[in-house]
Amino acid sequence: MFADEYFMKMAFQEAQLALEKDEVPIGCVIVSNDRVIAKSHNLTETLTDVTAHAEMQAITSAANFLGGKYLQNCTLYVTLEPCVMCSGALAWSQISKVVIGARDEQRGFINKGLSLHPKTEIVTGILENECSAIVKYFFNSKR
Amino acid sequence: MFADEYFMKMAFQEAQLALEKDEVPIGCVIVSNDRVIAKSHNLTETLTDVTAHAEMQAITSAANFLGGKYLQNCTLYVTLEPCVMCSGALAWSQISKVVIGARDEQRGFINKGLSLHPKTEIVTGILENECSAIVKYFFNSKR
Repeated sequence: MFADEYFMKMAFQEAQLALEKDEVPIGCVIVSNDRVIAKSHNLTETLTDVTAHAEMQAITSAANFLGGKYLQNCTLYVTLEPCVMCSGALAWSQISKVVIGARDEQRGFINKGLSLHPKTEIVTGILENECSAIVKYFFNSKR
Repeated sequence: MFADEYFMKMAFQEAQLALEKDEVPIGCVIVSNDRVIAKSHNLTETLTDVTAHAEMQAITSAANFLGGKYLQNCTLYVTLEPCVMCSGALAWSQISKVVIGARDEQRGFINKGLSLHPKTEIVTGILENECSAIVKYFFNSKR
């Protein structure tokens, strides 16, 4: 068993790849039985597509890998709390666990009163400082 | 100027294509300046992907067509009220208008207390009976 920090570091490396592309730096990985089956970072600018959030791409990739659309026995590690769109996709996927780096009070699903699938465990605050700092750095650099 | 019913009929034809593929029959089109720039139907089973809702595909297609990720001056016609995921995507897209066939009291975004972009006009109840009946027909046939 790996600790949540181990996979969140991989998600953070994905966020760093997004930053290098001048994308809002958010990354994620999906893990099944201690094996990474999908990793991705935000590509909304590169793909000119508002739906190209890290989580959306990872959900599609993981389902392709598994050959089934439900992500049971899978854990998503994401550096920033998912938005409404991504939380809806995660709910449809019935994913077992979602581990969140930093909260997103404004755009995140939690403060909108939304929930994921009833079976989905949610953990927050893993590598919170790094995950929060990289997003703040990006937006400060844009001012 | 075409009436909303004209484009909703096209969205309904997309729903019929989904039904033929044994998919939950929901269809949509996106219109810009009275021209259809994207049309799609639910393909979650065919693509083994919970994110493959009609609206998600149409948002991506329309952005590709326009060469920009924002769908200003565009109208989405969709046979069933968008879910949480699709409403989040529509909010990010800043689409100008969303025309809904039938409401989805359980899974739709409206009863979840969610809203789209502040600039987005929402119209409901266009071809409501047909759009509702095709979904009911599908689920009854599954019992």
